[in-house]
Amino acid sequence: MDNENIPSEDQVHDLEAGIEEEVVEALAADEHGRLADLIQPLHHADIADLLERLGADDRDQVVDILRDDFDPEILTELDETVRDHVIERLGVEEVAAALQELDSDDALEVVEELDEDEQQQVLEAIPLGDRTLIEEGLSYPEDSAGRLMQREVVTIPTFWNVGQTIDFLRKSADQDDGQADGGENELPTQFYDLFVVDPTHKPVGTIPLSRILRAGRHVPVTDILETEMKLLPVTTDQEDVAFVFRQRNLVSAPVVDDGGRLVGAITIDDVVDVIDEEHEEDIMLLGGVSEDDLYDATLDTTRARFMWLLINLGTAILASVVIGLFDATLEQMVALAVLMPIVASMGGNAGTQTLTVAVRALAMKELTPTNAIRVIGKEALVGVFNGVLFAGLIGVVAWLWFGSLGLGVVIGLAMIVNMFVAGLAGTTIPLALDRMGIDPAVASSVFLTTITDVVGFFVFLGLAALFLF
Amino acid sequence: MDNENIPSEDQVHDLEAGIEEEVVEALAADEHGRLADLIQPLHHADIADLLERLGADDRDQVVDILRDDFDPEILTELDETVRDHVIERLGVEEVAAALQELDSDDALEVVEELDEDEQQQVLEAIPLGDRTLIEEGLSYPEDSAGRLMQREVVTIPTFWNVGQTIDFLRKSADQDDGQADGGENELPTQFYDLFVVDPTHKPVGTIPLSRILRAGRHVPVTDILETEMKLLPVTTDQEDVAFVFRQRNLVSAPVVDDGGRLVGAITIDDVVDVIDEEHEEDIMLLGGVSEDDLYDATLDTTRARFMWLLINLGTAILASVVIGLFDATLEQMVALAVLMPIVASMGGNAGTQTLTVAVRALAMKELTPTNAIRVIGKEALVGVFNGVLFAGLIGVVAWLWFGSLGLGVVIGLAMIVNMFVAGLAGTTIPLALDRMGIDPAVASSVFLTTITDVVGFFVFLGLAALFLF
Repeated sequence: MDNENIPSEDQVHDLEAGIEEEVVEALAADEHGRLADLIQPLHHADIADLLERLGADDRDQVVDILRDDFDPEILTELDETVRDHVIERLGVEEVAAALQELDSDDALEVVEELDEDEQQQVLEAIPLGDRTLIEEGLSYPEDSAGRLMQREVVTIPTFWNVGQTIDFLRKSADQDDGQADGGENELPTQFYDLFVVDPTHKPVGTIPLSRILRAGRHVPVTDILETEMKLLPVTTDQEDVAFVFRQRNLVSAPVVDDGGRLVGAITIDDVVDVIDEEHEEDIMLLGGVSEDDLYDATLDTTRARFMWLLINLGTAILASVVIGLFDATLEQMVALAVLMPIVASMGGNAGTQTLTVAVRALAMKELTPTNAIRVIGKEALVGVFNGVLFAGLIGVVAWLWFGSLGLGVVIGLAMIVNMFVAGLAGTTIPLALDRMGIDPAVASSVFLTTITDVVGFFVFLGLAALFLF
Repeated sequence: MDNENIPSEDQVHDLEAGIEEEVVEALAADEHGRLADLIQPLHHADIADLLERLGADDRDQVVDILRDDFDPEILTELDETVRDHVIERLGVEEVAAALQELDSDDALEVVEELDEDEQQQVLEAIPLGDRTLIEEGLSYPEDSAGRLMQREVVTIPTFWNVGQTIDFLRKSADQDDGQADGGENELPTQFYDLFVVDPTHKPVGTIPLSRILRAGRHVPVTDILETEMKLLPVTTDQEDVAFVFRQRNLVSAPVVDDGGRLVGAITIDDVVDVIDEEHEEDIMLLGGVSEDDLYDATLDTTRARFMWLLINLGTAILASVVIGLFDATLEQMVALAVLMPIVASMGGNAGTQTLTVAVRALAMKELTPTNAIRVIGKEALVGVFNGVLFAGLIGVVAWLWFGSLGLGVVIGLAMIVNMFVAGLAGTTIPLALDRMGIDPAVASSVFLTTITDVVGFFVFLGLAALFLF
């Protein structure tokens, strides 16, 4: 560590300090020696970032350079599409070897994303002990605590004291050095809490390491036990796991089986990945994208986006049918055709604002049955208030533009109605979907814009047909 | 801890196990005794959640019940609007007392959100030592590492061994018990790494606690040092801090001043808050909401949403002006008015898909100069591919609906052009904003829908005017 070099703010990310460009240059110039010199000293996380940013051919070249001394941690840091690519290039034997060096949760994370064929091949190449741990992990439901946890946990019996605990850790460490894949008694690479268990292996409490270090050797572990802990059943959904970690500021938490016995522990680094994943899902679904497809091939992306656009085409045609009902009216006054998208657009935007807040609040468990009615009422009222303000604005604009006071009044009224409906729909749609067990981020915005388009066009053109002729 | 009761999955969140409804009932029935019995045993994080979900009057009642034995940690867990409310109800003296019990980073987090008057009053009520720490924290830029870090860190000189380190921690713990607010040598409530510093207080390396516990007493700390560490300058933006923690799977990291001296440490719990905050900002900005306003008053929300809607009104009027250019064409063929929103809507949706992926990828530092051109090209191509598919679909629909093959061809061509433009704009707009130092989530979607609306209407009506009459 060279203390003379204090990093500037820009250098907080290694890769941005010019290495990325140098790698790209070296790749373009086919300078393999320079490439190896540039890449090999990098942190595994930086290498993963680099692999993600390169095109397919360049990526293969970099994998080949790393092959002989491949850091298995790189695999855990990669995006799924890129990881598939790297795994294919590495080959089954290399991947199986890499997996054995990882903690059980990291190995599982890589294996669970493989397609069935690859999974089978890779598992067969892993020795029985590690393979069993991974296969047990795969037996838990997807996105459950069982998939996230690592099996290597440090457990302490209730009758030990601090001294015995420290001696045990020192002894285990010595054994670890001797035999790399130790099985049951293997210590995790890093751990933050010790779990005190009773004779039936049920957790009695946790002890943060900082507390062990502060206590004297003679202190019984039961004296420094944190008993107010959250036990996570092995089938807990990962979203709920993230909620508990976030709410309690945890760094690790015990996972228990049906019988309440400790089977593993989840650590904060995996939870941060879950948090990112859930956030990504929310933002993507709201934007009408099925998943992050930055690294997907063009045709895969085209296909993935098609369905959402098809649904949108259906709702757009529905809105056109509504407009078509008023073709006679439109023929009489072309100004209506000019102005009608404004009413629909404002409703859609006001509704999207409300919807975004509601979807986010549901995801963060801030919107609950206790405050649902209050929130719906508030949003409808916000819709009316802003509706009145914009009714005034657009009413005057329409009046001056087309010289018809009547037209101004009609568009103003339509604006108020549509923004009220937008506030109502923006809250009730996600709440209803959530109640039905559907992720509100998935379908909310289609429903919403269908409603605000249809209501916007219908009310505006309907009022015009009634009052302007 | 009652081991007989294994939590069911539904009970992972305490509050959902019916306590919330019971509290609401007790509040409605004015049963203060029952209320106290229900609330006082709850974890501080659960109390915070409860306070957030209650209406203003009920919230005041709960604060009054908690007042005599107020857990200061509650304040750190509250949403800003709700925290303001609770602080007002508690009063300056209570708040100042609560802050002294918190770690410096948590106290700072509460103080920095107060308005200036309150901040002054609260700070004056805090004794000099703690106040200085908070005031120093406030001197760092908002959203910087200096605001996130806690000043209490455990530092170890390079010449110690493991035994000396453990003895030091035990001795410090004893002192801590004696005098609660110890100043310089105070240990943090929880810590995960020790920082080894040279005589000038520059960090030489970190030691995870699990490593200290595994090593024998005689081992020099320099033997188990992790020297490959990320030093965070005190002015580092919190987004970059989050990036480093996420990329390196850290639980804590050292913060250094201009001279490279250790001034504090950031822990993962604060980073999780930052991650949530940044995600929230992205999702809200994309939805056209300035910040999470679930708990704001109706009028505040109306005002906050107004600006965005006003901008949208401007762009909607712009689109209407474009339509107005073709009023003669529209008068000749009302079918154009019926169909035109479809072209605009499909462009807007396709563009939003692309935009969402790009904004997210920029936020996660996955979209960089290295792959920008490739991503733009891919998205434009996806736009063309889906454009052709939907041109076929809508062309046939329009032909059959209005019996005009020419109309079908025109809307098909307009669809291809608009979806190509959507793919191009959906990537280039956020990239350009990012290059200009503007958060791409803020303004991208206004620009995008303006473009897809204007292009959609103009190309469709323009082609119709050219070829259909």
